[in-house]
This record gives sequence, structure tokens and C-alpha cells, in this order.
Amino acid sequence: MTTQQLTEQIKKKKSFLCIGLDVDLTKIPQHLLKEDDPIFAFNKAIIDATHHLCVAYKPNSAFYEAYGIRGWKALEKTINYINTNYPEIFTIADAKRGDIGNTSSMYAKAFFEDLGFDSVTVAPYMGKDSVEPFLAFENKHTILLALTSNQGAFDFQTKSLEGKELYKQVLQTSKTWKNANNLMYVVGATKAEYLTEIRQIIPDSFLLVPGVGAQGGSLLDVCKYGMNEQVGLLINSSRGIIYASNQEDFAQAAAIKAKELQRDMETILK
Amino acid sequence: MTTQQLTEQIKKKKSFLCIGLDVDLTKIPQHLLKEDDPIFAFNKAIIDATHHLCVAYKPNSAFYEAYGIRGWKALEKTINYINTNYPEIFTIADAKRGDIGNTSSMYAKAFFEDLGFDSVTVAPYMGKDSVEPFLAFENKHTILLALTSNQGAFDFQTKSLEGKELYKQVLQTSKTWKNANNLMYVVGATKAEYLTEIRQIIPDSFLLVPGVGAQGGSLLDVCKYGMNEQVGLLINSSRGIIYASNQEDFAQAAAIKAKELQRDMETILK
Repeated sequence: MTTQQLTEQIKKKKSFLCIGLDVDLTKIPQHLLKEDDPIFAFNKAIIDATHHLCVAYKPNSAFYEAYGIRGWKALEKTINYINTNYPEIFTIADAKRGDIGNTSSMYAKAFFEDLGFDSVTVAPYMGKDSVEPFLAFENKHTILLALTSNQGAFDFQTKSLEGKELYKQVLQTSKTWKNANNLMYVVGATKAEYLTEIRQIIPDSFLLVPGVGAQGGSLLDVCKYGMNEQVGLLINSSRGIIYASNQEDFAQAAAIKAKELQRDMETILK
Repeated sequence: MTTQQLTEQIKKKKSFLCIGLDVDLTKIPQHLLKEDDPIFAFNKAIIDATHHLCVAYKPNSAFYEAYGIRGWKALEKTINYINTNYPEIFTIADAKRGDIGNTSSMYAKAFFEDLGFDSVTVAPYMGKDSVEPFLAFENKHTILLALTSNQGAFDFQTKSLEGKELYKQVLQTSKTWKNANNLMYVVGATKAEYLTEIRQIIPDSFLLVPGVGAQGGSLLDVCKYGMNEQVGLLINSSRGIIYASNQEDFAQAAAIKAKELQRDMETILK
């Protein structure tokens, strides 16, 4: 998918919501545990109930790997289900991968080709040759960790690396990499006040913004400081939507929560 | 496994060799492609031929994920095969994971509990709360990326973060984290000259050292600057051993290459 197609979808749906599909079997409605594949059954119901309210889905690979082969199968079924039934939706493998060149190529192959995701999140610590193999895929997007939503972001990311905070060096340096136009960035909603300076470095890039809701970030602040002319934001909510209810009405409850966020976004877009 | 058990194994086998099981179906002997599970068939043969020469095996998860469910199954069979037949061997999931707290817990569960690895490699970019969930597992080890073997290490890792290179800040800061005694570190063999200063910060920790062989690092230099009284080194070789031959004799050829490295290590240990 191109970023232009993503922007068109945002305008059409009046939404820049991304829903995080982080399935924890201890948190989903217990009646689903009788299903052959409870993880997929949960995702399918959530997706069917919310696809018109969001523009992206983001399964976090950790939640699938934790269930071994069963989890990996559920991930494969989930991405196939989205790609088949809602091909207009942008898909993000939140995997935070990154390794030396030939190994990063294998990860890129896994997520872009084997699973068919539109994008994957990647950690920048190992530098250029660990990220460029992902960038080599046309119409696929590499979402680089810049400033994350957790407390640990202050351990290294916000500290000054040769005169400029590490996360800014990551933004600046990554712009010089081959096929940098395929880059997007993760910036946590809990760090909204940093977005003005971030937009000075990367005015046009899409930002994936986790941390609204459960983690305490503000949608309004993120939009105020982070939105650009093409919107340029994907606001993620996971737990706040998918675990809105753990009863039979879970999908309906998720849709209500997603609708609330979509309505706020529609207001902001006006 | 405890580090004491690892050290005892090193003394017994006169080896601190780790063999990287990075299986690429385009590089393995083509007669194996007829097998039900070529990846596992390859690994099993390599393991049976080399287990007495090495103290650790390190499958890199990228090479398994690239083959989807088939790959994940082969990874599961490989770790089970090692744990059942050669339980004295230290196992490393080279996965370079790391995420916000509750998500890192899921990764830790995946690699330590579900798959049963002794250790996993983790990226430090997201800081303390992304790593501590891994450290919480008793007798399991978290191998933090410090100074990697690739060219991209110079993009951020070797640059000065508030007066000290980023990789040194990672070493120093991580020492203060809860259960820091469960930490080991990745330091590339191509950066052997940095080991003296690294040992000043973490004199006692085990280092996982990739980059000897195909990437050009020197075993002698690594030992000269990086060895401590408990040896404290796991030297990894992947391609140089497992792809020594792509004919019927591949396992035997791998054992010959592993034996060469083991002999060099035995000489150094004297």
C-alpha cells in the first residue's frame, strides 16, 4: 500500500485510528476458549465490528509468539483475514525487529512476503545496515522506533548524543538511508510535547502513535503538535478498545470505544 | 542453566564455542529438501556432529520466521532436540526482542517458557522497563546488545551520549537494573579493540561474541582483550561452520571446522 492510499482511506473514513490486536487469552471473553482457535475467533469478531472505524490493524508479535505455533497460526489467519476481506486496511506487524543485514532481510521476507503485512516496526540500535534491508521492499513501510511511550524512553532515547537527543539523531540519520521514503516512525502519545520538534525534522512522515488511552496520552495534544497536511498520524489504541468488555458483547463494546475515538478524530479533522 | 554450569562445561570441553544455527534453505545440501522437515534435519545432523565441540547453540529467529509456521515448528523441534539429548548445552534464542513492559513479558514467556531457551538476545533502545521483564526469570539469561559486529554500530552505538559512548552507557546503566546478574552482552568480534574498556565496566559478565570468521573478527584478539578468569566468552560462528560443505558430508565438514576453532580455544585456555 502507498501512503497516498492510506491518506485517501483516512479522508474517506474520517479516522486515523489503528487498533492494536494484542490478544491475551487470560483477558478475552472466556466463552471463546471453546473455539478451535480462540485468538483468531477473537480477532475476527473485533475486525468485523470495527473495520469501518479504523484505517489500520496492528498485531504485536509478542502476543502470538507467546502461544508458540498455535499463536503463529492465529497471526497468519488474522493477517490473511484482513487482507482478503478488508484489503483497504493498512496492516502493521509490531515486531520491533532489527539485525545484521542478511538477517534483517529474512525478517523483512517473513513479515512483508510470507505474512503479507504492509509494514513492520524496527528498532534502530544497530544502525543503517540493519534497517535498509526492510526499506528495500517497494510499497512496504518500515516504522522505526524513535521516541517510545514507555518510561524507559528516558534511559537512552532522550539523552544527548553528540549535541542532539538520541531519538532526534535517529530521525535525522535515518533520513539519509536508501529508500528513506519508505520510513515511518513510532512516537509515543505520552511524549506529545516533543512532537513540534519532531515535525521540524520529519515534516512529511507518517507517525505511529501508541499510548493514547491505557498509557495516558492525549489525542488532542498529539494532533495539535503532530498532525501535518496529509494528517500523517496513526493513533493506536489496543487494550482500551479490544478489552472494553470480556462478555459476549465484547465486539460490540469494542466498536463503541472505537467509534468514540473515530468521532473525536472526525471533529479534529474538520 | 547457571553461569557456573556454563563455566564448568567450558572447562570440561575446553571450548567456548557457540554455533549459530541460521538455516537458509538455499544454502543447505539440496538432498535434504526431500525430507519432511529439511530445516530440522539439517540442524539435527549438525548438532549430532558438533555437540562435543561447542558449549552453546544459537538459532537466529529470523531464519525460522522467514519460513512461517514450518519455520517455527523447526525451531521448536530444534530446541527440544537439544534440551532432550544434550541438556548440558547452553541455548540462545537470537531474537533481538524488546518492547514495553507487559509485551516484553510475553516475549520472555515465549522464549524462556514456551520454547525453553536458556537465554535470549534483547535490544536496549527502549530502556529499563523493556528489559527487566526478561531479567525476572531465574536461571535464564538476557543477552543485551551492546556493541554489535556490523558497520551500522557506528551510526549510534559508538557515538558519545552525555560524555560516554552509547554502548558504554548501555553497559553502565543496565548494571543498575533489577536482577542485573542475569545479564550477558553482545560485543562483536570485529570490535575487539574496544574490549579492554568494556571489561572495565563489566569485568564479570559473559559476552556473546559474533563476527569471528565470515565477518572478519579475530579469535586471538577477542580472547586477549575480552577473556576474564571464568573465561566469560561465548564465541559464535554460524556460516563458517554450518555451511562448510553443501554436499552429503556437510555435518562432518561442520565438525571439522568446529574442531579447528575448539583446538584454537584449547590452546588459548592453557
